[in-house]
Amino acid sequence: MNTVKGGVTAAKGFTANGIHCGIRKNRTKRDLSLIYSEVRASAASVYTTNLVKGAPLTVTKKNISDGYARAIICNSGNANTCNANGIEIARGMCQVLGDRLGISEKDVVVASTGVIGQPLDITPIKNGIDELVAGLSRDGSEAAAEGIMTTDTVKKEIAVEFEVGGVTCTIGGIAKGSGMIHPNMATMLVFITTDAAITPEMLGKALSGDIKNTFNMVSVDGDTSTNDMVTVLANGVAGNKLIDSEGEDFDAFMKALNSVTVALCRMIAGDGEGATKLLECRVDGALDEENAKTVAKSVICSSLTKAAMFGADANWGRVLCAIGYSGAKVSVDKVDVSFKSSAGQVDVCRNGSGIEFSEDLAKKVLLEKEIEIIITLGDGDGRATAWGCDLTYDYVKINGDYRT
Amino acid sequence: MNTVKGGVTAAKGFTANGIHCGIRKNRTKRDLSLIYSEVRASAASVYTTNLVKGAPLTVTKKNISDGYARAIICNSGNANTCNANGIEIARGMCQVLGDRLGISEKDVVVASTGVIGQPLDITPIKNGIDELVAGLSRDGSEAAAEGIMTTDTVKKEIAVEFEVGGVTCTIGGIAKGSGMIHPNMATMLVFITTDAAITPEMLGKALSGDIKNTFNMVSVDGDTSTNDMVTVLANGVAGNKLIDSEGEDFDAFMKALNSVTVALCRMIAGDGEGATKLLECRVDGALDEENAKTVAKSVICSSLTKAAMFGADANWGRVLCAIGYSGAKVSVDKVDVSFKSSAGQVDVCRNGSGIEFSEDLAKKVLLEKEIEIIITLGDGDGRATAWGCDLTYDYVKINGDYRT
Repeated sequence: MNTVKGGVTAAKGFTANGIHCGIRKNRTKRDLSLIYSEVRASAASVYTTNLVKGAPLTVTKKNISDGYARAIICNSGNANTCNANGIEIARGMCQVLGDRLGISEKDVVVASTGVIGQPLDITPIKNGIDELVAGLSRDGSEAAAEGIMTTDTVKKEIAVEFEVGGVTCTIGGIAKGSGMIHPNMATMLVFITTDAAITPEMLGKALSGDIKNTFNMVSVDGDTSTNDMVTVLANGVAGNKLIDSEGEDFDAFMKALNSVTVALCRMIAGDGEGATKLLECRVDGALDEENAKTVAKSVICSSLTKAAMFGADANWGRVLCAIGYSGAKVSVDKVDVSFKSSAGQVDVCRNGSGIEFSEDLAKKVLLEKEIEIIITLGDGDGRATAWGCDLTYDYVKINGDYRT
Repeated sequence: MNTVKGGVTAAKGFTANGIHCGIRKNRTKRDLSLIYSEVRASAASVYTTNLVKGAPLTVTKKNISDGYARAIICNSGNANTCNANGIEIARGMCQVLGDRLGISEKDVVVASTGVIGQPLDITPIKNGIDELVAGLSRDGSEAAAEGIMTTDTVKKEIAVEFEVGGVTCTIGGIAKGSGMIHPNMATMLVFITTDAAITPEMLGKALSGDIKNTFNMVSVDGDTSTNDMVTVLANGVAGNKLIDSEGEDFDAFMKALNSVTVALCRMIAGDGEGATKLLECRVDGALDEENAKTVAKSVICSSLTKAAMFGADANWGRVLCAIGYSGAKVSVDKVDVSFKSSAGQVDVCRNGSGIEFSEDLAKKVLLEKEIEIIITLGDGDGRATAWGCDLTYDYVKINGDYRT
């Protein structure tokens, strides 16, 4: 499996574009993106667990209930959520795009991200649709990735090549996600495309299996958004034998999907609002996988741990504290904790008690940009990884006055 | 019921003191406190639900298992948690104090607050014990309140007078709590004293009944501490008829206790680390009380809502979002939200959708120091209140480098 360029248009038969249509006042920021498949594609999607759901999610769920789609339209700057006319506007976006592309509006996936509870005016989208479609290109991934960004500071793209029964396939994706990000589910927008041939059923199975260990294990701020959605389109243009059951081909697909989703998880966590560091919490020795996940997520979500990481302070007591209140079954007197980065590893806690360590080394380790918090429990074989980021002044700054 | 001066020594028969003994390097900060009852008192205590528990909690639990105590000793600057010799040190504190006071070490409640995982040296406590006891005074509440502070910026004291069967009783308390504060349970230290006569059983019942709606409904940062504890001593010096069952007298006691605990909750939330505002979330119309509590706590804990309040930004979509992911059963299309303060009230959401409101008024309302977030659901009669604070630059600053 090798990483390749091209993001969401790396797979054959996909084009994309992103433009500024006028939803945002800032004319230099793209606010409308389109991903298009030259043929109808198997489609699978997972959605936020928040009871308050963005109108686009409801429309998308209905549209792809037959298992297929050809296009994804997504605006930033407005979430189209908690608006009385939300469904109407989301449907309108599908219709406008379907008419222009000459496809059924039922083959359109629609998404929105931005402020909640402000009516979304469809006019700029209508006015921009010609430009959006005219600009569709095999090089359009970057523009599309930019068009879905909100407080994101970097574009998030990845693609890999893999083999299915001797045929080279490609899978890639773009993501946005910076704040309002918390497990169940990833609280972000992720659009993945692949030219592998796979049935909607198996695609759905692959996606829902994968997110448990990827997007559901990412947290920036504990707030599960109303608009999260991960969608995969598989158009079969690569020409592999259709994956319609479990087996070697399905496993190869799962593996490729996972490499894309893990890469996007790390990008999203590392670009958390105001973040200066990516935190990866790896738990081993838990009673079982569920307990490992609970511990890893609790540590990643602890404001005190996150703030300590920002300050490069090896305050491991906060890690212990977060393990203790996680709700997981843990023998607290068998907990080991280490911090690790490219600068080295420092062991700070053994059997639930502090041990002597070099504060100088700890500082060096924690001043790096990617920190691993390694927790070894003494309860069993369960393991899990969660991703998060530090809590910084800028998180507060960004969120203290996001709307006005 | 009137508020009176004197805090934890307002009730008859109690004295207190707080000194600097040397646990903290800063010689101007008191770090050791003592509360003393001239007679043995009924004692009740509730403790953190964190699996990682401070050693003092284990020792206290054992000491008051007979229902009685006479003294409370508490240090700040070190939590005596996750230390191999923690129990030994906590016991040592009881012994040193018991010897000096001429009481059984089993009649001592011991507590510690501060950094986790650094061995607590008992030497400064031993050396300070004469000064600590010699300074016991009916005016010592303030010194004791100061001695238990960590990152607290204000001393937290309250006392009220109430009547039990025609006899005037007094109940008062001190508290510390600023960071690592989250429901289950209050994640703070609270010491309450009363001269009312009440059995240990009824005192325990009163306390465990009360905290469900008070300390368990406070959150500063979602981190449940390892060392939280609320202890009440009732020495009976007021001379009322012993409260040994439910009834009018017990109700009067519960009411007085509640007025003390609610006042302390508000002080703790308002003095949350870095906080500039007290947030009070009042939920009405929920399916039942549990659902109301779940909603109120979720809103109070939302980092995005907290940051918006810091910025005086009426971003009510974040409130809706936090209601939606709370896990409570809520009809999201029947949710009303208003913000209220001494500057007025602004209604921002009706039936789950945004309504027109004056941004000027909203700003004025949210610039105040005490903000009510009023949520009216359309599901039933359940109601609850939770307290929290805004999320600010200073929270990050305080916690980015607390230990070093």
